[in-house]
Amino acid sequence: MSQQITSAITMTQLHLGERALQIDWSDGRKSTFHYFWLRDNCPQSRLIATDQRILETINIPEDIYPKAGYLTDDNQLQITWAYDGHVSRYDGNWLRAYDYSNGAKSPHRLLNEQPKLWDATIKNELSIVDYSSFITQPSVERAFLNQFHALGFGILCNVPTELGQVLKVGRRFGIVRPTSWGELFDIKARVETDAVAYTNIPLAAHTDSTYRNPPPSIQILHCLVSETEGGESTLVDGFKIAADLRTQAPQKFDLLATTPLHFYSHTVNTEHHAISPVIRLDAQGNVEGIRYSNHAVQPFLLPSDVMEAYYDAYCTFGRMREHNIYQIRYQLRPGDLYMVDNRRVMHGRTGFSRGGDRHLQGCYIEYDQLLSRREVLNRDQFS
Amino acid sequence: MSQQITSAITMTQLHLGERALQIDWSDGRKSTFHYFWLRDNCPQSRLIATDQRILETINIPEDIYPKAGYLTDDNQLQITWAYDGHVSRYDGNWLRAYDYSNGAKSPHRLLNEQPKLWDATIKNELSIVDYSSFITQPSVERAFLNQFHALGFGILCNVPTELGQVLKVGRRFGIVRPTSWGELFDIKARVETDAVAYTNIPLAAHTDSTYRNPPPSIQILHCLVSETEGGESTLVDGFKIAADLRTQAPQKFDLLATTPLHFYSHTVNTEHHAISPVIRLDAQGNVEGIRYSNHAVQPFLLPSDVMEAYYDAYCTFGRMREHNIYQIRYQLRPGDLYMVDNRRVMHGRTGFSRGGDRHLQGCYIEYDQLLSRREVLNRDQFS
Repeated sequence: MSQQITSAITMTQLHLGERALQIDWSDGRKSTFHYFWLRDNCPQSRLIATDQRILETINIPEDIYPKAGYLTDDNQLQITWAYDGHVSRYDGNWLRAYDYSNGAKSPHRLLNEQPKLWDATIKNELSIVDYSSFITQPSVERAFLNQFHALGFGILCNVPTELGQVLKVGRRFGIVRPTSWGELFDIKARVETDAVAYTNIPLAAHTDSTYRNPPPSIQILHCLVSETEGGESTLVDGFKIAADLRTQAPQKFDLLATTPLHFYSHTVNTEHHAISPVIRLDAQGNVEGIRYSNHAVQPFLLPSDVMEAYYDAYCTFGRMREHNIYQIRYQLRPGDLYMVDNRRVMHGRTGFSRGGDRHLQGCYIEYDQLLSRREVLNRDQFS
Repeated sequence: MSQQITSAITMTQLHLGERALQIDWSDGRKSTFHYFWLRDNCPQSRLIATDQRILETINIPEDIYPKAGYLTDDNQLQITWAYDGHVSRYDGNWLRAYDYSNGAKSPHRLLNEQPKLWDATIKNELSIVDYSSFITQPSVERAFLNQFHALGFGILCNVPTELGQVLKVGRRFGIVRPTSWGELFDIKARVETDAVAYTNIPLAAHTDSTYRNPPPSIQILHCLVSETEGGESTLVDGFKIAADLRTQAPQKFDLLATTPLHFYSHTVNTEHHAISPVIRLDAQGNVEGIRYSNHAVQPFLLPSDVMEAYYDAYCTFGRMREHNIYQIRYQLRPGDLYMVDNRRVMHGRTGFSRGGDRHLQGCYIEYDQLLSRREVLNRDQFS
């Protein structure tokens, strides 16, 4: 409730009904607010320091009604409640912003943003951000974060090629999330290897840590040394593929959205299991997450008469993620760093020769800390 | 694929069909395996160290078939694939365990466990575990973790009342997840306060950090000092309430499962938003999460003709969570420590007088690290 829209439109008339009141506005609009809603959202029933509600909603009488109610000269609605004599005051601008009877959406910008879906053509319009500008100019950092939130990935260049530097970048946006690998992980070609990532074979696009619950929401990878041939980084927008699949082959989309898969990883000291469909939908049926790792997924256990249709859907999605219509490829040079929304954007790399060294360092952070940083930067912009 | 069931039942006959093969077993069962599935799950196409699939599934020909196939004397199926000459060998016990044509479930025990729903009567059968037994006897730790996974909470007693001790317990199960509060948070009555939790007013049952995305999955609270009157800790099983509501009032359940709410918190340096319904369902319609904080939830913005029905559902759930049929109350003494699955079990406290000091310390860990620890302990038990 911190953002209020200042407006010349004022409340002109108040009508008290049985379970709700009606407000007439100076521009002719009429709004209805239920008494229960008004009492529940009383501004005087919140902690001032944090804006948290201290009222317990279940204690409001179901048939609550006002003893008195009027509009003030300074565009406030004042209600005295019959059951306990409590007085609530509501600012007209706030009521206008939360006018659900006329379909109000949240005044928080964040809640009304939609992801910007992309395919391989995004490479032509991509801004790769210079690290020193990024750390010295809040407007550059803000633009980087806005682009990251819209696209699900971002690339910085000229990041100092020092060991552990990726943690400094991660900590700028929030708090590094340690996993069983520690805070930081090194990706090099190794002879003795713990995971597919630590070899020189191609890595088809995937999301990371699919077997964790929850998986880390943002991965950051920083290139320190790159002397091999090949080994281009690949990025692909899982939301775009899901949206196209939904249009072109809705039955395949539905199979991927409703069939739970088992993702698994084990080492001497750990054993991780997670269950998820490839495409996760929210309660409204919008795509909210992608989980795809052909390395970690366990044998499908589906009815025989579904198995072939499921494989068809799984491989259609799998081919789309590797198709040059959707996938961008990018040769990371020392000092390049990319970040991906691990719930949306799949990443991988092409194969590389053993001709030289290759060394990346990575870490995980959580999405909401990055969003918090972005919101605070945006708040500063307008304050 | 690490767990195999040893069995005296063997494969007796092999029939090669057009897109699948059939196996006859010594007990009369017949199983069908698609060629595509067999090639995709070829044991020789996995990294030995990690059991990860290195084969890229989309590269398997859609009409794959064998050049040759036979059963060996040691109960193995051997297939030579026509398209590339690759040879795959499958153990009969493994095929039996993954026999999806006869409805096989995953052989991993974890995937077949169901939560044990509970109400207030659980208090009579609850085992509160002594900390020194817990840290010295793996069987006690294993039993504690099994109970935690079934019930969504657990209580330890006689934990040393040293500052920071809660971090030691958290690190035993995995890795402490820092938030904007740091790794550890202190809960005391304060005059100047940052959140409702830091006051002496009653805290109705809630899940923590509802405005984070994702919220931390496990909360640990450790009691260091408890000299106040009142201030009992409350715990309630959100899955049990959801299950009962689904039976008793399915329309209310559906409203809570399909209506997204906005959870919000802000301080000088942070601004966190999350969107979620109260009851989260997985792709099969099973309850997978509860998010309920009357403090952090923002004004409902719903169509006028839905608002009263939604409040009715929200308050029904809210009253159930505070009802003595469902809620257990427990007076934490110094040295007590409780852990809750923050995606399932709501916690709170009754009000307390300012007569004495009260000091708890808490931290967050992630669920899958605790499960990993449990799986490794169980693995050791049987190996």
